[in-house]
Amino acid sequence: MVLRLSTLFLRTLREDPAEAEVASHRLLLRAGYIRRAAPGIYSWLPLGLKVLARVEAIIREEMDAIGAQEVHFPALLPKEPYEATNRWTEYGEGIFRLKDRKEADYLLAPTHEEMFTLLVKDLYNSYKDLPLSLYQIQTKYRDEARPRAGLLRGREFIMKDSYSFDIDDAGLERSYELHREAYLRIFSRLGLEVIPVAATAGAMGGSRSEEFLHPSEIGEDTFVVSDGGYAANVEAVTTVVPPHMDYDDAPAAEVRDTPDTPTIETLVDHANVAVPRTDRAWTAADTLKNVVLVAVLPTGERELVVVGVPGDRNVDLKRIEANIGGHLSVSGEVSVEAATDEDLKKHPGLVKGYIGPGLSADTAVLGSRGSTRLTFLVDPRVVPGTTWVTGANVRGKHVFGLVAGRDFTWDGVIESVEVRAGDEAPDGSGPLRTRRGIEMGHIFQLGRKYAEALHLKVLDQNGKLTTVTMGSYGVGVTRAVAALVESNRDDKGILWPRNVAPADIHLVATGKGEEIFAAAEQLAGELEGRGLTVLYDDRQKVSPGVKFGDAELIGVPTIVVVGRGLADGVVEVKDRLSGTSENVPVDDVAGHLQALVSA
Amino acid sequence: MVLRLSTLFLRTLREDPAEAEVASHRLLLRAGYIRRAAPGIYSWLPLGLKVLARVEAIIREEMDAIGAQEVHFPALLPKEPYEATNRWTEYGEGIFRLKDRKEADYLLAPTHEEMFTLLVKDLYNSYKDLPLSLYQIQTKYRDEARPRAGLLRGREFIMKDSYSFDIDDAGLERSYELHREAYLRIFSRLGLEVIPVAATAGAMGGSRSEEFLHPSEIGEDTFVVSDGGYAANVEAVTTVVPPHMDYDDAPAAEVRDTPDTPTIETLVDHANVAVPRTDRAWTAADTLKNVVLVAVLPTGERELVVVGVPGDRNVDLKRIEANIGGHLSVSGEVSVEAATDEDLKKHPGLVKGYIGPGLSADTAVLGSRGSTRLTFLVDPRVVPGTTWVTGANVRGKHVFGLVAGRDFTWDGVIESVEVRAGDEAPDGSGPLRTRRGIEMGHIFQLGRKYAEALHLKVLDQNGKLTTVTMGSYGVGVTRAVAALVESNRDDKGILWPRNVAPADIHLVATGKGEEIFAAAEQLAGELEGRGLTVLYDDRQKVSPGVKFGDAELIGVPTIVVVGRGLADGVVEVKDRLSGTSENVPVDDVAGHLQALVSA
Repeated sequence: MVLRLSTLFLRTLREDPAEAEVASHRLLLRAGYIRRAAPGIYSWLPLGLKVLARVEAIIREEMDAIGAQEVHFPALLPKEPYEATNRWTEYGEGIFRLKDRKEADYLLAPTHEEMFTLLVKDLYNSYKDLPLSLYQIQTKYRDEARPRAGLLRGREFIMKDSYSFDIDDAGLERSYELHREAYLRIFSRLGLEVIPVAATAGAMGGSRSEEFLHPSEIGEDTFVVSDGGYAANVEAVTTVVPPHMDYDDAPAAEVRDTPDTPTIETLVDHANVAVPRTDRAWTAADTLKNVVLVAVLPTGERELVVVGVPGDRNVDLKRIEANIGGHLSVSGEVSVEAATDEDLKKHPGLVKGYIGPGLSADTAVLGSRGSTRLTFLVDPRVVPGTTWVTGANVRGKHVFGLVAGRDFTWDGVIESVEVRAGDEAPDGSGPLRTRRGIEMGHIFQLGRKYAEALHLKVLDQNGKLTTVTMGSYGVGVTRAVAALVESNRDDKGILWPRNVAPADIHLVATGKGEEIFAAAEQLAGELEGRGLTVLYDDRQKVSPGVKFGDAELIGVPTIVVVGRGLADGVVEVKDRLSGTSENVPVDDVAGHLQALVSA
Repeated sequence: MVLRLSTLFLRTLREDPAEAEVASHRLLLRAGYIRRAAPGIYSWLPLGLKVLARVEAIIREEMDAIGAQEVHFPALLPKEPYEATNRWTEYGEGIFRLKDRKEADYLLAPTHEEMFTLLVKDLYNSYKDLPLSLYQIQTKYRDEARPRAGLLRGREFIMKDSYSFDIDDAGLERSYELHREAYLRIFSRLGLEVIPVAATAGAMGGSRSEEFLHPSEIGEDTFVVSDGGYAANVEAVTTVVPPHMDYDDAPAAEVRDTPDTPTIETLVDHANVAVPRTDRAWTAADTLKNVVLVAVLPTGERELVVVGVPGDRNVDLKRIEANIGGHLSVSGEVSVEAATDEDLKKHPGLVKGYIGPGLSADTAVLGSRGSTRLTFLVDPRVVPGTTWVTGANVRGKHVFGLVAGRDFTWDGVIESVEVRAGDEAPDGSGPLRTRRGIEMGHIFQLGRKYAEALHLKVLDQNGKLTTVTMGSYGVGVTRAVAALVESNRDDKGILWPRNVAPADIHLVATGKGEEIFAAAEQLAGELEGRGLTVLYDDRQKVSPGVKFGDAELIGVPTIVVVGRGLADGVVEVKDRLSGTSENVPVDDVAGHLQALVSA
């Protein structure tokens, strides 16, 4: 195929568009791959569509290779299946909802677990029909609060989603592994580095789950790795819990005047002056910081929660969000935010800067048995027997030597503080380093949650109805295009990996001689005959500088220039990535390029 | 590619599903091509997706061949561009509307004129950039009042839509012709008979327009053809207008008692008894029937309109709907229905059964100058000088000899009555026959309507800003799949044309011998190696009867049976369409089949 720049629907932009925040967005706009239609909603121009088609083809091949079968579901779906699993409510504001002319409720699907479950229920009824994996490459919708970074977080986007169906846990494990390996092959063929990291299941439900993160400074996901091979999304990291301590010999807790110490820093400074320790100085780690938070439930209700964490750690709201659902007995996405002064005023027992669990189990302030009736959760480091300095619920007073499990109790333990570089990996594989990444894929062992809610049962080998166990697996297709640009670019433009470039060769004719254009034209035809896609810059009145600039911006990996050298029987073959070039005899160049492309 | 029935996600149904009204819907469900997700919304199973992909590939090739370039727009679009062209209002209830979390208005696009216009405006600015044709194959939405017939009238469906951009009318004419020819090639390659017929532009606006109708008894469109080559949608047929008549010698109109004659039939009977003509008997064609209708505007307003038509003709609401917009000065889709008694009661001047335009131009009842203030339109046959028997607006009285243009006037002329077999073609090419058809494609010369509304101007050769002229062109992709089944089937199942079949060969292994399955397996591999797609029935415990039944239901054009004949070194090659079969030596069969498929 030959795409001629003289007629191709393409205009490159010299200036950076104001709307673009990140490099991939800027370059995809400037090089004419996409255009914005609305916030988080993009149109694909001819070159963009070529890249997208190549990405999709690779995904399709790898899914077919593991025996997954392609189907295609609608995007516009009725409410009922999503009500059966409670996701209609759980998604909160995160999905687009609408009514048809008969006032029936519909949604634009963000993911299709329910529909696949119902389809399999419709067609299959025996263990002999399993295992089964189905997939689709389909347009999805999410009403993101803050669509950002172009294709990286859009509101209409393309995903490959697949779903596996098995009769038992061992089968699910196999289907999960097949997908995991297929994903690693897909990203490898796309030329996209990914790290599979342990993840939480979030609104999906289910047990084991991994994300495939593409390391990138602009990624929204923070993850940690250890030299020993541990890798996890920060939401999924579990804290190395210290052993319970014996507190038989611990002295009784004591309330002290600590005037003007509403912060951890002022408290520690005061303690080191007023109550110096003999063994070492007090540090923030000796204090228990009780943070009042608001959990916003999928129903919109706001529930106050207090989390007690070591004073040297900051709470990490995303980690709390990932883990709090179970403690509040809600499923679905809970968002967590800091409580406002307004919120605090409703509970006069909470004295800002001096909040504590209470001076003894009998006079509890926090916790379900406490006087404020607030749920009290603690960080895993607060194990029975640990001793803390914390608020006495009176302005200007703290309590020293409060022993966890003796003087106070809690309603639950939650991963709630930031993971820090240097923290120990939970599997003992060494200290953690933190990195940022873009989520390119996510795989879930859903288990029986959806099959139970929608009654997907088949007959097992003993003729007994058995609930099917499921997995769900997604790859962001449009996001992959953006991530590829994010990591494959220089100051001149894009550097497409060969497998996903919009064309195999960018052919530039420069100069005014008719023989130059005739030779370029012939070469384009010859390359097309060899099955290559050629982006041919056949524009007559455009300067060589503009042509080269466009070629570098567009980012096809091999640029061929037919120009002055033609008089000497050579054309120039440039490597976009290295910037190197060589002269190749015009008679040999087609074969040379074909070898280059299939290398 | 080999698709194995032992694992293919497919279950054929023996019974006709209750939900299916038409043959194509019934067969596509029974043979496992699609499943219903909601009214008018379908999921595509693996075999259905294969057919869809082949249909799309043919369309894509033909669009590329006329130089159209593929792009892809979102389905979820903001209101503003559709407001600029007034279509946000004009579509009325016909589109899905929704709000995002910020309460901004969006729609699910039924067609994309606005967005393509804006995109071209964004990229292009000179006549040198034109002509340009862009297309997409994309999912579209319409909130149909009555989704029906499976894929034939869906609410979520796939269309190929394209848009042409030209600097002048001659260019538009060329772009239109290119699309027209490409469409004829597309339908021919799909194996789908279509007749291009003149059509009205409807809500699209613009001038010249043709529909590509696939003749079918269950089609929703009625069209007419003459032996001389005229073809038009009934909405677009123009009446052969009789010449104006001289009425200088016509006697004065006369009101007569016509008791109990509220219908045309009773009136004609009465007239033939009470006021017999000397030359011939009175017929219904001598009477003017004034029908009170309600036009429901896009805004939801209801406006009463009276249409005067010869008494021997019935009004055709669809023809009126297609033509009434201009008379009411509204654009967009107007629906027309019969007035109710309630509606009539609001205008006491209208005496049911005896309604007439009034006894003279000075005492008009109907028309904008009449006492009822109702718009009065007439059929084109009501030309000045024609004489009519019609209501006198008094119960039991009619007026005889009322002369059009002398005694009464009208606000406009409208194509309003049914077209009948035997009516003359407007181009003089002979009498018309009526047929029914399914709309497979529609092409429009939009002209400058959208470009003007959205300010798409480019510099012309004289450096002057000129508004671009546009065409819009659509093919129903999912609908084509249904239409193909509608016209290619027998009582056993589907008869796919070879170009669009889900596979090239349906290979059936029957019998219990291992050597049979081994031979079939080998043949499947050999055919795959030759580039053919094989649907291989490798099921072990399924009877030959069930296998043959499934093969006939699924409808791949060539069925190959590896069974008893294998002992004699032959396999059976059956033609699904003719039902004939022949034995072919097993060693030659792969070559034989490849020749068959590429024939």
